[in-house]
Amino acid sequence: MIGLSSYAGVMDSLMNSAEEQQASSPLTNSWSKIQESSKNQKPKGVGGFVLVHAGAGYHSESKAKEYKHVCKRACQRAVDQLKAGALAVEAVAAALVELEDSPFTNAGMGSNLNLSGEIECDASIMDGKSLHFGAVGAISGIKNPVLVANRLLSEAQKGKLSAGRIPPCFLVGRGAHDWAVSHGIPPCPSEKMATKFSLSAYKRNKRKMELAEKMDTGQNQTKKRRQSSENENGSGCLDTVGAVVVDLEGNVAAAVSSGGLAMKHPGRVGQAAHYGCGCWAENACNMNPYSTAVSTSGSPFLTSEDRVLGGVIVLRCCRCVEAQPSQNIQGILVEFLWSHTTESMCVGYMSAQDSKAKTHISRLPPGTVPGQSLAIEGGVCRLMGVVE
Amino acid sequence: MIGLSSYAGVMDSLMNSAEEQQASSPLTNSWSKIQESSKNQKPKGVGGFVLVHAGAGYHSESKAKEYKHVCKRACQRAVDQLKAGALAVEAVAAALVELEDSPFTNAGMGSNLNLSGEIECDASIMDGKSLHFGAVGAISGIKNPVLVANRLLSEAQKGKLSAGRIPPCFLVGRGAHDWAVSHGIPPCPSEKMATKFSLSAYKRNKRKMELAEKMDTGQNQTKKRRQSSENENGSGCLDTVGAVVVDLEGNVAAAVSSGGLAMKHPGRVGQAAHYGCGCWAENACNMNPYSTAVSTSGSPFLTSEDRVLGGVIVLRCCRCVEAQPSQNIQGILVEFLWSHTTESMCVGYMSAQDSKAKTHISRLPPGTVPGQSLAIEGGVCRLMGVVE
Repeated sequence: MIGLSSYAGVMDSLMNSAEEQQASSPLTNSWSKIQESSKNQKPKGVGGFVLVHAGAGYHSESKAKEYKHVCKRACQRAVDQLKAGALAVEAVAAALVELEDSPFTNAGMGSNLNLSGEIECDASIMDGKSLHFGAVGAISGIKNPVLVANRLLSEAQKGKLSAGRIPPCFLVGRGAHDWAVSHGIPPCPSEKMATKFSLSAYKRNKRKMELAEKMDTGQNQTKKRRQSSENENGSGCLDTVGAVVVDLEGNVAAAVSSGGLAMKHPGRVGQAAHYGCGCWAENACNMNPYSTAVSTSGSPFLTSEDRVLGGVIVLRCCRCVEAQPSQNIQGILVEFLWSHTTESMCVGYMSAQDSKAKTHISRLPPGTVPGQSLAIEGGVCRLMGVVE
Repeated sequence: MIGLSSYAGVMDSLMNSAEEQQASSPLTNSWSKIQESSKNQKPKGVGGFVLVHAGAGYHSESKAKEYKHVCKRACQRAVDQLKAGALAVEAVAAALVELEDSPFTNAGMGSNLNLSGEIECDASIMDGKSLHFGAVGAISGIKNPVLVANRLLSEAQKGKLSAGRIPPCFLVGRGAHDWAVSHGIPPCPSEKMATKFSLSAYKRNKRKMELAEKMDTGQNQTKKRRQSSENENGSGCLDTVGAVVVDLEGNVAAAVSSGGLAMKHPGRVGQAAHYGCGCWAENACNMNPYSTAVSTSGSPFLTSEDRVLGGVIVLRCCRCVEAQPSQNIQGILVEFLWSHTTESMCVGYMSAQDSKAKTHISRLPPGTVPGQSLAIEGGVCRLMGVVE
């Protein structure tokens, strides 16, 4: 799990790296776009930018198209919300729903099965404007865990419950499921959330475990077996999906959702549900001119793993004053990047002025080893809005 | 919930404050003790120091004796472990067991009941030597949640599970309970964990809620009611217990355990189970000469509350070379403190060389308002050990 203090360090170095890239090659390495606002009474605050990822892990060439597709759709969903005047937090939730609904991602529909053959999901969302946070852990029977997290966040924003009780921000297991249903989120039968792929992966993993345990008893070739299983596990099972959004008012939001590790123990909660671990969003304030949103993916307790396998998407933005004759044009400069130590990571990004999202499967440089090297890429986007 | 970045700031200011106190009045404000090692072959690393608290909230004078007693016993349990050569992490778990077993604390036995009249506990533990962490959330039917957290920590230290699976560090709900039982921790019937006091508080809260909801419907005097219920809730329900320990080898550990808020929604997990929120422990390393251990207590999402009600115990230590003729004496300088914004906080502390623990009910200065002012006290302890 990555703590907040790590974030700060990681972000600083990532951002510095992004800044260097921009400085050295402003056009080749970055995606720069001036979004001219149309003159016909466009209201302030309608628009923005979204960056999503469909998992840091291993993406086979054969499935690349599917992963790109889901990223594209997720970006579109967020942009639709932004264009309709939604705040960043609503747009980021919309992107996550699309990512969860894909049977190819390890989140919501198609999530990894746990040791008991059940799906238990983690998700969290943070609103940089209010700094409110909502999360669910080990939740079953709900198609879109992020919607429960988002509902927890919005309910908490309404203030105290009856008799002065503080509303929950993090619910787990059965209690989370029941809370969701009592708040109008429909339950989804577990069998509808499993896919042909996740069921066959479960059976394969189950056989592998049984074989491994039999071999453990025999204490035969243990080391070799462990090594190979780790590699297989490491490449396929760490997927998490996430998104970061900024709206045209400069509000940021971040969200993350995961089915967790394959064959995990029931009740296991991963970093996607952890405050300060799975996602973070914080608007600019007097003390800090930058708004920041982050969503991570990675092994629990990265420090104790031999190979640190993870990924992150980051968005940082600040208001900028343009050298334009018109005083009523205000801009937001958005810097964004993705980085991963896994073999690959599928990302998509889009601003509200784009006709469609750009998608990309980022891969480690050829010949490098996952967990021992890092890919980092990013860009810059300039959003322009009319100030009333 | 308090994130890591907040910790750093809080600790720095607390530590500075402690340092000022020491500088100005080294003997009156601090508890300084030289622990001379006996000459008869005392093995290195047997001994240490423990600081515990039995809750930051409101401690009535009538119950003061009970709270002090449980702190005393908790310190003794940790010191017994340290004297037997246990590492800090084992000693801190032993202290927590005693705190959980008291029917007067809101942890383990006697925990607050949730909305359904059930007990669901959170606990976590961190080992500063390995940086491993173990936690349980919303766990029912286990007398000592900290022992499950500690077992998760120690199982994780053994490395990967069969087929390369990463062992869990955070389990919740039914899954946590089943894991505990399958690892030899006996289940405890729920009715044995509730006390006469917790059951009557539940009935009282239930009536209060029903009344409040009835009044909400009538929209009558709502504001006044809310105000008074908040005060009652704020003073009584935020208790968490915790401990921090350093052993004579300089290893630190921290742990925290809580029954959570009274009348919380089932499945709600509080900061006691959150990585980087409820407790933190980190041994000195090349980059940092100080070992630090922290255990917190407080409302979830402190930033969004009107009144920030919380408490913290902190221990920081470093090796020091004494100006002594004998080269084989090595010392550890331990700085410790407690601080709270709640009305009161009950603490106890003891070194392995003391015959009994010192206990203290810290209170805000008379006339000050909980959540708007802060009490901070601490001391210094010098541990001496023979270097082989």
